[in-house]
Amino acid sequence: MTDTSRLHSWIASANQHADFPLQNLPLGVFSPVGGEPRGGVAIGELIFDLKAAVAHDLFSGEAAEAAVLAGGDSLNAFLALPAAIRGAFRRQLTELLAEGSPQQSRLEALGEQLLHPARACRMHLPARIGDYTDFYVGIHHALNVGRLFRPDNPLLPNYKYVPIGYHGRASTIVVSGTPVRRPHGQSLPPGQSVPVFGPCRRLDYELELGIWIGTGNEQGQPIPIGEAGEHVAGFCLLNDWSARDMQAWEYQPLGPFLSKSFATTISPWVVTAEALAPYRKAQPARPQGDPQPLDYLLDARDQAEGAFDIELEVLLQTRSMRERGLPPERIALSNTLNMYWTVAQMVAHHTVGGCKLQPGDLFGSGTLSGPEPGSLGSLLETTRGGRLPLPLPGGEQRTYLEAGDEIIMRARCRREGFPSLGFGECRGTIVD
Amino acid sequence: MTDTSRLHSWIASANQHADFPLQNLPLGVFSPVGGEPRGGVAIGELIFDLKAAVAHDLFSGEAAEAAVLAGGDSLNAFLALPAAIRGAFRRQLTELLAEGSPQQSRLEALGEQLLHPARACRMHLPARIGDYTDFYVGIHHALNVGRLFRPDNPLLPNYKYVPIGYHGRASTIVVSGTPVRRPHGQSLPPGQSVPVFGPCRRLDYELELGIWIGTGNEQGQPIPIGEAGEHVAGFCLLNDWSARDMQAWEYQPLGPFLSKSFATTISPWVVTAEALAPYRKAQPARPQGDPQPLDYLLDARDQAEGAFDIELEVLLQTRSMRERGLPPERIALSNTLNMYWTVAQMVAHHTVGGCKLQPGDLFGSGTLSGPEPGSLGSLLETTRGGRLPLPLPGGEQRTYLEAGDEIIMRARCRREGFPSLGFGECRGTIVD
Repeated sequence: MTDTSRLHSWIASANQHADFPLQNLPLGVFSPVGGEPRGGVAIGELIFDLKAAVAHDLFSGEAAEAAVLAGGDSLNAFLALPAAIRGAFRRQLTELLAEGSPQQSRLEALGEQLLHPARACRMHLPARIGDYTDFYVGIHHALNVGRLFRPDNPLLPNYKYVPIGYHGRASTIVVSGTPVRRPHGQSLPPGQSVPVFGPCRRLDYELELGIWIGTGNEQGQPIPIGEAGEHVAGFCLLNDWSARDMQAWEYQPLGPFLSKSFATTISPWVVTAEALAPYRKAQPARPQGDPQPLDYLLDARDQAEGAFDIELEVLLQTRSMRERGLPPERIALSNTLNMYWTVAQMVAHHTVGGCKLQPGDLFGSGTLSGPEPGSLGSLLETTRGGRLPLPLPGGEQRTYLEAGDEIIMRARCRREGFPSLGFGECRGTIVD
Repeated sequence: MTDTSRLHSWIASANQHADFPLQNLPLGVFSPVGGEPRGGVAIGELIFDLKAAVAHDLFSGEAAEAAVLAGGDSLNAFLALPAAIRGAFRRQLTELLAEGSPQQSRLEALGEQLLHPARACRMHLPARIGDYTDFYVGIHHALNVGRLFRPDNPLLPNYKYVPIGYHGRASTIVVSGTPVRRPHGQSLPPGQSVPVFGPCRRLDYELELGIWIGTGNEQGQPIPIGEAGEHVAGFCLLNDWSARDMQAWEYQPLGPFLSKSFATTISPWVVTAEALAPYRKAQPARPQGDPQPLDYLLDARDQAEGAFDIELEVLLQTRSMRERGLPPERIALSNTLNMYWTVAQMVAHHTVGGCKLQPGDLFGSGTLSGPEPGSLGSLLETTRGGRLPLPLPGGEQRTYLEAGDEIIMRARCRREGFPSLGFGECRGTIVD
């Protein structure tokens, strides 16, 4: 593959753009002003309209077929394409938008037919999500939560053998910017034996990496770990909103249910596996004494380059901060290197019993906390179960989320010699 | 509503049919020989072809709109219709097929264009299942399983307050007759601390009622219990295949995952809420000392007629029994009256936090065991965790399922003065 790390775009806002330089080119579904939903690509401050691009015959060959699918009102059919065809599409897209493209003057002439100001567009979910699975691969989060609920036994015996996950609710996944209504439900007040019904009192966020499945597998046909990468099309940010008081009461014996199913927010752009290739890393060494993964979870190439070095940031802005002009405050800085299991291990495990994945299925990584204070991916951890309030600018503090609080998640990839790139934002504001 | 309980059909095989008399009229999606998938209605030994019925203008008004949607290759759009329109369709369908219908000779003349022999048709899943939720409302099952895993504490403190449920895997739900491949996975051999990987050794069935959601709700807008019935379109049988050894190892702390996601089998026909109306019963009284349901789960009409009296049967035929001409052996006889929570309570609970239901979503009831031996809805219970083998005709016995074993589930509604009706079969054979 040609090295594209030095290329610039003729779209000025793309160069040195924090999230969307020419090297990113994430896909999403958007509506321009007065227009219907369609596929597009984020480039700098603009969105490249794939429906318009197809209408003007900007792609050729296999890439043109891919562009037709990517230009529709959901990316499922595009995600179903073999990785090689998605790659051909990406190469032509890079050529079209690179400085010196022979097509530059033709594209510029199309103006806002082809390139829409992103701030004027409305984003949608990029795909119909068939099934959503939430994993639990953030080992520091598992330890922190385990210490709160089971001080004697924080990490269950299966954790270092099984990439723990559970089925989540697909129907309530919403795109960044959608308000999140505080759920009502049952909880057990401390020291009592009869539950009460009412609004959630311990509303929390969870910082996660989202993983978009591309090509699927047939039921009964596991995906071997060595082939797992071909089935992963892209990534996003995911906020697994959690009602902690409801969760504590309901989760035995079958796992979280209503405490999670009221809403899950994702960032709108599918950042492709190709864009993230330069930010792959070796899987961090397992601490001494940890068991070796079982064979079906072990692959030399995955160990060598299956992890990702993506910085993850959580910001909080309360209503009062907004009203007083105070900017959002960073409340956590973590990294995807805090995953105990790689994405390929998650795919291999999910399918090893024969479970069928389909294009547009979504995984959450589980909460990605780091080992230090300041790197914790939920308020449950930051406030030690609500005991240590988090101080905020302007004299406020929080144990859990209050009405008007907005949680903003961002991601950033950095590497010497490469432009930095990001995921766009994953935002949600609590309404009561 | 007119009393239709005494009506006969001009289709002879419908009268006294064990499952599909004129009073049932369940909907499904089928392919006739050489034809594409389409909607149909089971009537006696025949399937009434809704695509053909629409082509020949057999319906009028609102019912005709409903018939167009019910004749498609999935019932989702039909399930989305208001219950009143689905009811209008059902009334015209009853008139068309009843003895003395003015249309009888015209319909008979259409012959196999309109009425296909069911045994020659292939059944499909009746709808695209958006999300699948598995509940745990069979209290005898919860007690039996609890006694095996937690002898001191069989029923967790939340059970009598919360209709416990969890999200299941929608992508691997298959229609009756689909072979079920034994999954491979991790399990912890007794007395050991390191798991092994291999084929499941404790493969089990679970007898459940399936519930099809009709019209849905908006995210953040709970369905009050008094309106829940309008959102339930129909019912089926559901076999929640379970890999017990994998389940025991993986299910803490987030619930069952791969031990369930390899396959779930459902019967192909959507038996409508209207057809089951005569078999409604009062919710059985809670045992003395049990708490009253919280307000959002309590509705006088639901308490008076929210339960169903449906007999449920499980049969097993091993490969050797099949080869020797021995018929399937009944291994369990239970009833939906063993549900601790009603279907309306399940709907009200599921949505009370704001979770969105969509047409074509599916619920499983959880395993419906009765209190007596012979009424247990899983081998885990029948064999007390594999300790008491189940003797079978021909000298065989089973603790868990072996290759070639076929599990067959049936349901039957009986009431004095009404024809008996059934659900059709839910079958699956284990392949290794």
